[in-house]
Amino acid sequence: MTQNSKIFSKNAPIGVFDSGIGGLTVLKALRHHFPQESYVYLGDTARLPYGTKSPETVARYAASLTQELMKQDVKAIIIACNTASTHGMEAAKALAGEIPVIGMIDPATHTALKVTKNGHIGVMATFGTIKSGAYTKAILNIRPDCRISPVACQMLVALAEEGWTDGDIPRSVIHRYLDPIFQHNNAPDTLILGCTHFPIFENLLKDILGNSVMLINSGEAASLYLSDHLEIHQKDMMGHVKFLVTDDPVRFSENATKFYDERLKPEDVTLIDIKG
Amino acid sequence: MTQNSKIFSKNAPIGVFDSGIGGLTVLKALRHHFPQESYVYLGDTARLPYGTKSPETVARYAASLTQELMKQDVKAIIIACNTASTHGMEAAKALAGEIPVIGMIDPATHTALKVTKNGHIGVMATFGTIKSGAYTKAILNIRPDCRISPVACQMLVALAEEGWTDGDIPRSVIHRYLDPIFQHNNAPDTLILGCTHFPIFENLLKDILGNSVMLINSGEAASLYLSDHLEIHQKDMMGHVKFLVTDDPVRFSENATKFYDERLKPEDVTLIDIKG
Repeated sequence: MTQNSKIFSKNAPIGVFDSGIGGLTVLKALRHHFPQESYVYLGDTARLPYGTKSPETVARYAASLTQELMKQDVKAIIIACNTASTHGMEAAKALAGEIPVIGMIDPATHTALKVTKNGHIGVMATFGTIKSGAYTKAILNIRPDCRISPVACQMLVALAEEGWTDGDIPRSVIHRYLDPIFQHNNAPDTLILGCTHFPIFENLLKDILGNSVMLINSGEAASLYLSDHLEIHQKDMMGHVKFLVTDDPVRFSENATKFYDERLKPEDVTLIDIKG
Repeated sequence: MTQNSKIFSKNAPIGVFDSGIGGLTVLKALRHHFPQESYVYLGDTARLPYGTKSPETVARYAASLTQELMKQDVKAIIIACNTASTHGMEAAKALAGEIPVIGMIDPATHTALKVTKNGHIGVMATFGTIKSGAYTKAILNIRPDCRISPVACQMLVALAEEGWTDGDIPRSVIHRYLDPIFQHNNAPDTLILGCTHFPIFENLLKDILGNSVMLINSGEAASLYLSDHLEIHQKDMMGHVKFLVTDDPVRFSENATKFYDERLKPEDVTLIDIKG
């Protein structure tokens, strides 16, 4: 990415895309850090989930979403989905030209490497992300001496979508996934939340793991990363957000509240058709 | 369905299709009841899950799977998926001509109505099946005086796919879903397992609900239903099963063991391409 990344129109929105609603945790973090910016959030709800699709299909979807965001004259594109970041980054960059494209893998990796002291990093993600080895490769590419403990936490996606984020059930599920990694003397001191659904378990994870483990939230990491490449607005106004989905705005707006801090109404969400 | 249903070649296989692996519980029940028959199981793993797709899309998929099974000269088609049964039955029947097509909704409904004494039937299913009202409509169409308690149990699909079918976590999840319905004086005496993933929780459900609640397993119900329409083989040999999938035979064969009673090897499973 070059200094050219900073020449785009100040008033242009930032584009954020995801297969569905998980990426709203990323939008939430971005809005927290850059409230003056405007955003276009594009959720490809007709074709979710991406995790079970082939890399080629995910790359094709990422390309079509990038094209859609380009039509909205965005000044940066955030791929707010780990699967799409893993398989769709190249396709998105090829289409975006000089517009910066930021995925989930690199920002979280950089932040984790900055904060780890013992060089042991845990990665919790979906089965597909863990299987792709995306985080392992990204970490070892920079620090080949790191130790990495990946764990596929598929059930947490279902819990997040059901809105069961507190209480005995998510607590037991987290223990079952993480105890084998953290109940050791040489446990990770840093844990990447490698799925955009997982920040809604952040309080519970802190409670279970204690203060000695640093949690890396992809949205927070992407915000830090973006601040290096974006000219921040200095105006006093809050920016606005446009929501686009490829299926059922009502269901999207109902489910959004689990991942986002504002209540959406169905009329805030526009249904669009995407080919490709 | 007419007597013509019985004229097809004795040696032709029975076709079974599903969006993925859940339908294997149906195949397991069919093989238990009709071990002499041969089967073609077709799992549309490239396009799963169906639950988040529009009814029109699911109907189109069901049509393409029906066509694929017709190429295999099947003598009956079992739609081993509640979503595809709800939205794809008409499309499948239109293509199948005289070949009987049996879905999940009608057999389970008939069995439930046969066994209920208090006329109160519980239905546990995915969010999509509950939202479609398929069981409610089917039951009330026959017995308008029935009371129905539907409950969307989305987390059980994730638990089934993770293979967590016993122990505290699935037990707590089942209690959370079912206690509001069953901890009453006028609780259902019959519970339809309205998702083909759910039979793997049958022992746990029996343990939680006790003997006073009859569980209706879709595969068992479909087998009973099929026996009215199928000329049973009288030969001594076991039939064989051909497995076809639209994506990743290795993952299918690995995951199949949770839902099926035989261990599949990747070479037992053939990858096919389906357009439509």
